[in-house]
Amino acid sequence: MGRVSDRRRILRVSPHDRRFRADTLLGEEPLEIQLNGSPYTVTMRTPGDDVDLALGLLHSEAVITAAEDTVTAKHCTDSDLNVLDVTLRGAAPPPRTGFTVSSACGACGTSSLEALWEYLTPRLRYEIAADPVTVDVPVLTRLPESLRAVQRTFSRTGGSHGAALFTSDGDLQCVREDVGRHNAVDKVVGWALREDRLPLSGSLLAVSGRVGAEIVQKAAMAGIPVLAAVSAPSTLAVDLAERWGMTLAGFVRDGRCNVYSGFDRIGESAT
Amino acid sequence: MGRVSDRRRILRVSPHDRRFRADTLLGEEPLEIQLNGSPYTVTMRTPGDDVDLALGLLHSEAVITAAEDTVTAKHCTDSDLNVLDVTLRGAAPPPRTGFTVSSACGACGTSSLEALWEYLTPRLRYEIAADPVTVDVPVLTRLPESLRAVQRTFSRTGGSHGAALFTSDGDLQCVREDVGRHNAVDKVVGWALREDRLPLSGSLLAVSGRVGAEIVQKAAMAGIPVLAAVSAPSTLAVDLAERWGMTLAGFVRDGRCNVYSGFDRIGESAT
Repeated sequence: MGRVSDRRRILRVSPHDRRFRADTLLGEEPLEIQLNGSPYTVTMRTPGDDVDLALGLLHSEAVITAAEDTVTAKHCTDSDLNVLDVTLRGAAPPPRTGFTVSSACGACGTSSLEALWEYLTPRLRYEIAADPVTVDVPVLTRLPESLRAVQRTFSRTGGSHGAALFTSDGDLQCVREDVGRHNAVDKVVGWALREDRLPLSGSLLAVSGRVGAEIVQKAAMAGIPVLAAVSAPSTLAVDLAERWGMTLAGFVRDGRCNVYSGFDRIGESAT
Repeated sequence: MGRVSDRRRILRVSPHDRRFRADTLLGEEPLEIQLNGSPYTVTMRTPGDDVDLALGLLHSEAVITAAEDTVTAKHCTDSDLNVLDVTLRGAAPPPRTGFTVSSACGACGTSSLEALWEYLTPRLRYEIAADPVTVDVPVLTRLPESLRAVQRTFSRTGGSHGAALFTSDGDLQCVREDVGRHNAVDKVVGWALREDRLPLSGSLLAVSGRVGAEIVQKAAMAGIPVLAAVSAPSTLAVDLAERWGMTLAGFVRDGRCNVYSGFDRIGESAT
């Protein structure tokens, strides 16, 4: 119970050989998050940094805005580390249903995309567009390899996604890993909340893999002005980043990258 | 509205050059799924094959088991393709909350993992363990490149995940793409349901990327006996596959792979 990774017996197959051996796999277990003792949601995750995950998830969903909004956050028992209770200072919201866009058929005149903007934007607490930070190209394009270098669980399992926070000079602040890309970001944001570092003005967030709208939304909620991904962003990720004034870079590899929004923050190319 | 991909102006940065250009990005938009006219869930997805996505998602969640359970499935209006209504023969379940493991604190003696098994296993309708299909190593290890070869959206955007169904001889049956890995699998299962091909006995499912528990669960619900992934599976994915009698292969690349469960289905190495 509650293992970041675990050993399994596998059959390794190559064109002219097959043999059983032990292999290290990335852990995945359900985590039930309770608020004030009542079920809120269940998420699959890699065990470890569960408090950060819960706090970050609650922050992304606007249930809490600061560490002061919580009294305690701890596993319910030592015997089952897959249930975590967060005691809030205030009342708990009803169980999570995910965001729902109110576009009942009669009101289809309002487009569902506009409804999404109108749902998400009022939840943002920080003015990312006003963040004056710039990032030099060598710093920006080194972020994925800097992330990879500190992804200890990936090194052992080849299976985890990573998210890491850096200063604008590229100094590592925090790294978290998980089977889910969103969870890795939630864990970083939860760490920052716990350390009273929100908003994350002037910070760079590097993520392995791709960037969908929800990653941008989580970063925006935490006030992160620059998001860099190893792979591609989606149209909606780019549109949200642009609308909210975030710099979004993708395909960040080998000294190169594509910048999709917030171009003004891209500084010098040569050091 | 409703584009599989779209053009955006981006800044391409390399060590000694930067220039604006147009680039093709993978589409992502919210899809609201309604059941009998009432909201059920909203999921981010790449537009296209929306009916397959909705039917596959509803099948994975045991809301429907066959095409006959539905009367119609169509977009509510032509002007907003992000709302889709499925009319069921029966009553609609309440809005989706995701699965919830009933492990309230007082009952923590039951482990949350056991609760998960007990929640998921009774929903399975097909006996995967009894499927006598075998797959030869050359067929198995070619699946990812066969998938990649038909991922038309990936070729244009570099951003989509893919899922494809093959016969045990490696002949392509269906391919679907999406910004979300789970959605790509839902779209394949929805296609199979619509074509009245469930259970997918004797079939191989290839997926880009990694395999978590939910991918295994969706494949198992559709009766798929062999799942092959380009990247790593998690511990829980392997444990579910093993328990349900599914053959799960990962790191399927360059004529090699790791097999994590269902070893008996691995046939000849040389052709």
